[in-house]
Amino acid sequence: MRIAVLGTGMVGRAIAARAAELGHEVTVGTRDVAATRAGDWADWAASHPRVGLAGHADATRGSELVVNATSGAGSLTALAAAGEENLAGKVLLDIANPLDFGNGFPPTLSVLNDDSLGERIQRAFPRTRVVKALNTLTADLMTHPRQLADGDHSVFVCGDDPDAKKTVAELLADFGHTDVIDLSDITTARGTEMLLPLWLRLYGKLGTGIFNIKVVR
Amino acid sequence: MRIAVLGTGMVGRAIAARAAELGHEVTVGTRDVAATRAGDWADWAASHPRVGLAGHADATRGSELVVNATSGAGSLTALAAAGEENLAGKVLLDIANPLDFGNGFPPTLSVLNDDSLGERIQRAFPRTRVVKALNTLTADLMTHPRQLADGDHSVFVCGDDPDAKKTVAELLADFGHTDVIDLSDITTARGTEMLLPLWLRLYGKLGTGIFNIKVVR
Repeated sequence: MRIAVLGTGMVGRAIAARAAELGHEVTVGTRDVAATRAGDWADWAASHPRVGLAGHADATRGSELVVNATSGAGSLTALAAAGEENLAGKVLLDIANPLDFGNGFPPTLSVLNDDSLGERIQRAFPRTRVVKALNTLTADLMTHPRQLADGDHSVFVCGDDPDAKKTVAELLADFGHTDVIDLSDITTARGTEMLLPLWLRLYGKLGTGIFNIKVVR
Repeated sequence: MRIAVLGTGMVGRAIAARAAELGHEVTVGTRDVAATRAGDWADWAASHPRVGLAGHADATRGSELVVNATSGAGSLTALAAAGEENLAGKVLLDIANPLDFGNGFPPTLSVLNDDSLGERIQRAFPRTRVVKALNTLTADLMTHPRQLADGDHSVFVCGDDPDAKKTVAELLADFGHTDVIDLSDITTARGTEMLLPLWLRLYGKLGTGIFNIKVVR
């Protein structure tokens, strides 16, 4: 699959590297290609020669699947830069959380309760098939879940389009996830985004991000 | 231990029955004893002859541990009826969630993000040692956790007083819980209360409340 990964941070790099390793054609999207190249991108790119870099719009244009790995605060802006036409009809795997660091750590959420970032993105891009997933665990576990309890823990997919959720669930299974729970429509993203306050406190308690929840049933 | 369980609903009855079964001296507190007796209480009481019934204040006065098993919307009122003096110095196990059913199902939360019901109760009753716990699972699993995966799932304690958390954790262990995670101070109740939106969607998806999360680490 041709995959555009929007965002050059830890999450974007983790997803891009893993997807390329699995044989996908991956282009990372960034707001400013020159600025990204001028940062620590070169080192990372040297060890990931099959991953391309382009502006958000160029990366998105030729893709079949788009991954939103930007920060929650910047997601709508990055997706606008990617372009509504370029995103139309495509599956968008949205990993971002609407974290607000304005009052320090732990952050609060800037969207919650009767709305979610996933829903905001879906409303802003009605022709795009948004699937919220992977926002409930750390980047390294998103892409290498088997390192923890041989993958015996859960992830979720939330979205209005069954085929889009199937596409994302298959990618997650390729990553190594063994328990992908389809929560239902995109409004269920509220629940997975609102898991963050508990996740952040567990992170503080356990001193590592290498943990996840399992839905025991 | 002499335990007051405030609230005559499913949660209150489950906790009262289990605590009495374990040999504790249990009194259920209610707003209106006559009204409770006039309802379906008599049937339940007949099969739980060791559990007493009294007004909130009378139940609380003689107790060593108080359990808030009232609805989130009514908790502060019920605790005010229990009496600040009667609650002073005592451990209060707070199970309530601030659910708002004003817009139908699933409910939203009326307190969240930078506050929690647990914190509100702690602020309203500063001499009481509030421990938030058991608000993340269904009543029957609170009290009989071994029925699911032989108890291989997690519960949390949140509170400012280490001794109070120890008391509650011991009670939870007596109930059969095998993984009681001390999240830290009472502000961590935000995380466990904000788990409810995910819990409610999983409940809808799974068609049963007999599930729980396990923190895999």
